[in-house]
Amino acid sequence: MPTESKVDVLVLGAGPAGLMCAQGLKRAGVNVRIIDKRPKKVAAGQADGVQPRTIEVLQSYGLAERLLREGNQMHMVRTGRTADITAPSARYPFEVTLHQGAIEAIFLDSMRELGLEVDRPIIPTALELSHDENELRDPQSYPVKVTLKHLDFGSEGQDDTEIVYAKFVVGADGAHSWVRKTLGIIMDGEQTDYIWGVVDLIPSTNFPDIRNRCAIHSSNGSCMIIPREGDKVRLYIQLSDKDVVVDKATGRVDKEKTKVGPEELLEVARKSFSPFTIEKAGEIDWWTIYLIGQRVAQKFSVHERVFIAGDACHTHSPKAGQGMNASMNDTHNLIWKMTYVLRGWADISLLRTYEFERRKYAQDLIAFDKKFSALFSGKPRTEECQDGVSHEAFLEAFQTFGAFSCGIGIHYSPSSIPSMPNITELKHQSLTSHQTVGMRILPHVFVRAADARPFEIQDLLPANTKWKLVVFVGDIGPGKIKQIERVAKLADDLGKSTGLLKRYEDGVFEILTICATVKECLNYTDLPEVLRPHWSRVLLDDVDMFGRTGGKGYDIYGVDPSQGAIIVVRPDGYVGTVTPLEGVKDLETYFDTFLIRTL
Amino acid sequence: MPTESKVDVLVLGAGPAGLMCAQGLKRAGVNVRIIDKRPKKVAAGQADGVQPRTIEVLQSYGLAERLLREGNQMHMVRTGRTADITAPSARYPFEVTLHQGAIEAIFLDSMRELGLEVDRPIIPTALELSHDENELRDPQSYPVKVTLKHLDFGSEGQDDTEIVYAKFVVGADGAHSWVRKTLGIIMDGEQTDYIWGVVDLIPSTNFPDIRNRCAIHSSNGSCMIIPREGDKVRLYIQLSDKDVVVDKATGRVDKEKTKVGPEELLEVARKSFSPFTIEKAGEIDWWTIYLIGQRVAQKFSVHERVFIAGDACHTHSPKAGQGMNASMNDTHNLIWKMTYVLRGWADISLLRTYEFERRKYAQDLIAFDKKFSALFSGKPRTEECQDGVSHEAFLEAFQTFGAFSCGIGIHYSPSSIPSMPNITELKHQSLTSHQTVGMRILPHVFVRAADARPFEIQDLLPANTKWKLVVFVGDIGPGKIKQIERVAKLADDLGKSTGLLKRYEDGVFEILTICATVKECLNYTDLPEVLRPHWSRVLLDDVDMFGRTGGKGYDIYGVDPSQGAIIVVRPDGYVGTVTPLEGVKDLETYFDTFLIRTL
Repeated sequence: MPTESKVDVLVLGAGPAGLMCAQGLKRAGVNVRIIDKRPKKVAAGQADGVQPRTIEVLQSYGLAERLLREGNQMHMVRTGRTADITAPSARYPFEVTLHQGAIEAIFLDSMRELGLEVDRPIIPTALELSHDENELRDPQSYPVKVTLKHLDFGSEGQDDTEIVYAKFVVGADGAHSWVRKTLGIIMDGEQTDYIWGVVDLIPSTNFPDIRNRCAIHSSNGSCMIIPREGDKVRLYIQLSDKDVVVDKATGRVDKEKTKVGPEELLEVARKSFSPFTIEKAGEIDWWTIYLIGQRVAQKFSVHERVFIAGDACHTHSPKAGQGMNASMNDTHNLIWKMTYVLRGWADISLLRTYEFERRKYAQDLIAFDKKFSALFSGKPRTEECQDGVSHEAFLEAFQTFGAFSCGIGIHYSPSSIPSMPNITELKHQSLTSHQTVGMRILPHVFVRAADARPFEIQDLLPANTKWKLVVFVGDIGPGKIKQIERVAKLADDLGKSTGLLKRYEDGVFEILTICATVKECLNYTDLPEVLRPHWSRVLLDDVDMFGRTGGKGYDIYGVDPSQGAIIVVRPDGYVGTVTPLEGVKDLETYFDTFLIRTL
Repeated sequence: MPTESKVDVLVLGAGPAGLMCAQGLKRAGVNVRIIDKRPKKVAAGQADGVQPRTIEVLQSYGLAERLLREGNQMHMVRTGRTADITAPSARYPFEVTLHQGAIEAIFLDSMRELGLEVDRPIIPTALELSHDENELRDPQSYPVKVTLKHLDFGSEGQDDTEIVYAKFVVGADGAHSWVRKTLGIIMDGEQTDYIWGVVDLIPSTNFPDIRNRCAIHSSNGSCMIIPREGDKVRLYIQLSDKDVVVDKATGRVDKEKTKVGPEELLEVARKSFSPFTIEKAGEIDWWTIYLIGQRVAQKFSVHERVFIAGDACHTHSPKAGQGMNASMNDTHNLIWKMTYVLRGWADISLLRTYEFERRKYAQDLIAFDKKFSALFSGKPRTEECQDGVSHEAFLEAFQTFGAFSCGIGIHYSPSSIPSMPNITELKHQSLTSHQTVGMRILPHVFVRAADARPFEIQDLLPANTKWKLVVFVGDIGPGKIKQIERVAKLADDLGKSTGLLKRYEDGVFEILTICATVKECLNYTDLPEVLRPHWSRVLLDDVDMFGRTGGKGYDIYGVDPSQGAIIVVRPDGYVGTVTPLEGVKDLETYFDTFLIRTL
């Protein structure tokens, strides 16, 4: 008899998407289990690029510090030495590169502190989803039955089979996802004929830009340099289809029959580098060869009970450093929604927004990748090859996609919350003219009213599953009678006995108050109590004591200090809606569409 | 028969001075042992103020991150709301408050990672120092015999006595130091009649500045507020001598006979706070009553084989938050010197500079404390009391001592290195008009030439026992032929076969090169190899890619880009000397006075 057990969420696959998912759910107190088929975590190579928005997301779970310490930071791109990142609003204006194993270790160690380990080596062998509509609709039911096989069991007559009944399953099991195939979900898109080799090594070279992201676009082919942690460098090297044998059945490179190894890849790179030289100093750390596929899954879930995430739902070229970022951001999007449904705080239909938001993003990503890859893999324009890609066109592409590729540009459309009248979400957008509804809350430094300590606002809006009401009260300094009265009225509206703060489960909301008043003119005790639940929750739009940081925050968000605004920030850091100080009724309408009322 | 053993350095006392000492020596690879009489570390109360310079020092060992995370930061003082710190060059422009136990935990955990634990509970019972001059002069001898008693041994007939032979002993055993008394070292100075009570609590109050350092100076007495980690606050409360019974023999408050407890202290505070209210929310965390003593030890060592450090050599009032800082900085000064002598890299006479530098600092500290305490404890000026301290005089004192009290102003005099001709240390001071020789290297952000990543220079000059040659090469951009030639000549001078870099033990020096050239005009490969031992060691005086940080560094240090300068930074972060680019001979003279030559 196989062991049987129940779990709220079963995560299949312990790569970046699965680990992000498991740590976030565990942190939120959800009963979660994560399994993986590999006996150990990745040791070298694989994905390595972490984009600015992903760093912000990791920081929202308290995980960015170690990444920044261990990883390499890419600040500069060699195209006349411009910034590697083209989004000036990025809190971290650089990319971090660190091998996937080290990034996974950050999650694994954090999960261990929370009391969660990856069960391995285990593979799923069967998955059955109930057809009972009532069961599917009840978030407390266990409609998914998964059969697991323990790969290291069985020698001593031990039963290697296990049955798990789960409320939800997340398939984060990679590009060749077993979950996706088992559910019969189709990938839209196609294989390209772009063939690339990748080598990780410590170079010995006289190339002066070896520590910057560089694209070498020569008639000997293209080569891209990605500096890595320590003295390591990754080279992406374009190969010709005559170098490589492709298995027609799988569409993958046949590594057995292909006679190209790391030495041959380095030889191709040498030609691109000429007249500079490059040699390996020590051993090759990791290498691979692949064909670029550009595909998106048709569906990201079945009945919002089994989900797929990460490479299981989108594959594309690795050169823009998007893969691992898209994967982690998939499950970052799912964590709080699943938590709310499991806690009974939100209707199960909230989970539909996962596919709505993340599939659109994946489609945009593939469209971006197609343009980028075509330019990158194309022959350069020369006298003999007038159809080639000009260096200028290449550079332009390299820059144009900046905001998108660094993750700052992610924009969730309205109606992402089901049955939400779009008009409510967007009707007050003009109150925050620089903070777009649907995009992540902009980073900025404010000083705390009680002690003038500067804080990055994103650090006060962590991914702790709470919705944040960021109340820009405007200027309420001496003599600003009208604004002070409006704020007093807002406090009354918020404090009502069946109002916004009372009608849902305790713990949904956190309030953060931001005054457009300088420190000389305001005490935190001047605010109504509902707007200062703790002395630390009142900020000023002012510089710190030495004028080193802070100030002009109302300009950053485009809020008028004589008006004010309430910016509603979702638990994942994206702005849900914006209202005026008189908009508590609008907020009640907004939250009533998906939160379950207790009053 | 008691156990006998040998150790290079025995540290007696595991408070801040002793822990700083032990972790630094262990980090440097020194064979060190640390003992303490207490069975456990401090749990609450005690010292709690960490000054800006001390944060820099902790950062130089990689220990500041956790302090900044766990501690409270005091940015603002309530005197019309000015900055808590008056030294704008501070890297950390605030004080951190965190209870001593938490600070000790930072050291203890870091030491554990290095493989060192505190042996406890143990007390020393005898100390004998050899009188043999040859033995005293030989750094590899063991001239100190210490007898230890294990307080938790003996019940099962176990011998609780142990003999340790040490090359050096550090007595970091507090204000009532057994080591100091055993060595017969006299404390200069006297007891004051200022009596203060201290209470740590979580307050419930409507006082708007409860999260800022405040001095309440009322006719009901003075009270000082120190905000602490979490919601805690420390109150310093002035008492009248009729409230307290002093033991004439010890000069200490007799806590048995004194009828004042925490409730009485809070009652006195309430009078100062009026018309605002203050109550405790929960239990009193810690409290004490004390008389202020202001004393400095006449000697800080005997024959440079037994040293005293921390409260063992200086006591003063705690209100300016200096005690723990002075203690940690005492042993920070000693660590590298002792390491060099034990490694055979420097003459044993180098250790004399410990007393020279730190005793002068302690004397300055007491002088500062006398002025500060008199103002603080004096009655306020009122109509009835025209001799009282005016509020203006008090505020002025609060501000005036800023640079000193935050530790940034520490200035080691020349001739701190024995038999060093002062003229060599100071003759080129004008080349760095804003970086004083004898003071700590100023913090500033530069960008790395190879990848445009910004770095705080102090982070590139860690307390790793190495001397740093910070070479400001000036502007060596295109066309700056003369400066390029001077730099080439410097590289030749440094590279000589019996020159500066070759004549001492390997590992004494690290080179950091700073170019007054913008990133568009320089590759790190343009520098001579001796000035770029690794790609990461070349910096530019330029802003980062988004102009957020960096730039104007030559101005900060007062270096002329058409001249350049070499700033020599000691292993403890203080500037040893400055020379021009042609000054390699001066550097050889400087280091020959105390480093042992191998060529």
